[in-house]
Amino acid sequence: MIKDLVAKNRSYRRFFQDVTISNDTLLELIELARLTATGANIQSLNYKLINKSKKNEEFFSCLGWAGYLADWKGPEDGEKPTAYIIILNDNRIKQNPQYDVGLACQSILLGAVEKGLGGCMFGSVNREQLREYLTLPKEYDITLVIALGKPKEEIVIDEVVDGNIKYWRDDKQVHHVPKRKLEDLLL
Amino acid sequence: MIKDLVAKNRSYRRFFQDVTISNDTLLELIELARLTATGANIQSLNYKLINKSKKNEEFFSCLGWAGYLADWKGPEDGEKPTAYIIILNDNRIKQNPQYDVGLACQSILLGAVEKGLGGCMFGSVNREQLREYLTLPKEYDITLVIALGKPKEEIVIDEVVDGNIKYWRDDKQVHHVPKRKLEDLLL
Repeated sequence: MIKDLVAKNRSYRRFFQDVTISNDTLLELIELARLTATGANIQSLNYKLINKSKKNEEFFSCLGWAGYLADWKGPEDGEKPTAYIIILNDNRIKQNPQYDVGLACQSILLGAVEKGLGGCMFGSVNREQLREYLTLPKEYDITLVIALGKPKEEIVIDEVVDGNIKYWRDDKQVHHVPKRKLEDLLL
Repeated sequence: MIKDLVAKNRSYRRFFQDVTISNDTLLELIELARLTATGANIQSLNYKLINKSKKNEEFFSCLGWAGYLADWKGPEDGEKPTAYIIILNDNRIKQNPQYDVGLACQSILLGAVEKGLGGCMFGSVNREQLREYLTLPKEYDITLVIALGKPKEEIVIDEVVDGNIKYWRDDKQVHHVPKRKLEDLLL
């Protein structure tokens, strides 16, 4: 059921770092993105796949983790992501690919969840540094980065109370995500 | 398998118009969107659901159909969508919700495909007219519209030849969508 996958597809930020992700697995996820709709079928998105320890360290350093958790600087050694998908846009073909990026991300992340993996999207990225690591031609813009791994945290969905949508962690390190009620989304 | 759903989730534009879509079905699709990630968990998206014949006619008139099919003005009577989801953004909360809209759309459309339905996203929308039909407060921007129904057309994925990504219809009214190869998406 798609609902089970969608519900299980949370933004995971702590992983079993000893569980690596193969190139073939990453390619299967990109195949899902390839088959996903793009506006006017333009297909301006490209993908850079990273799953080697040394490269992982470089990419990890470019990401801004969990804005609402002020006291948490990101996962510790042993709990870091084991792969990254950098979603690039060929700006010669399309200027504003954000809808397409969102569509592709959801396909990739649902595919990851089905494989027992999980991920987190990052818009907060040190793009300048990342460009340098990737030696990226200027025709390619960095849109979002997906960090992937085998999730090592529990995430629960709560109801929004008093309009507060900030996620938080309890004493047992369970991650809570407040979501608005269905009836509040309808106009 | 998510791959089957993703592959089957094409942009359908002709439907069995006698197959209606209930409110409950539409709400199940919005529940998928509700459980889908939004940047910083902001949740600025709202939804207007349309599935009554008279309203359907109004909304149909606001959509621009299939840009690459110059001789086709959209589905005829009997093949029109039977429901619409209008994705609205509360601009008091977020200014650029396009990533979130893409994520939500993919959840909604995969959910529709699982139910034997299918849909098409529209960015080409007469927003002024649509605002009037919806008597929409100015705090809500119209992002994309999803048209839904039980698909009445065959769509096949081809390889891109000579860089041509325009979809087209053959003599048998089969809709062809050229997609770039997996290896061409990797940088």
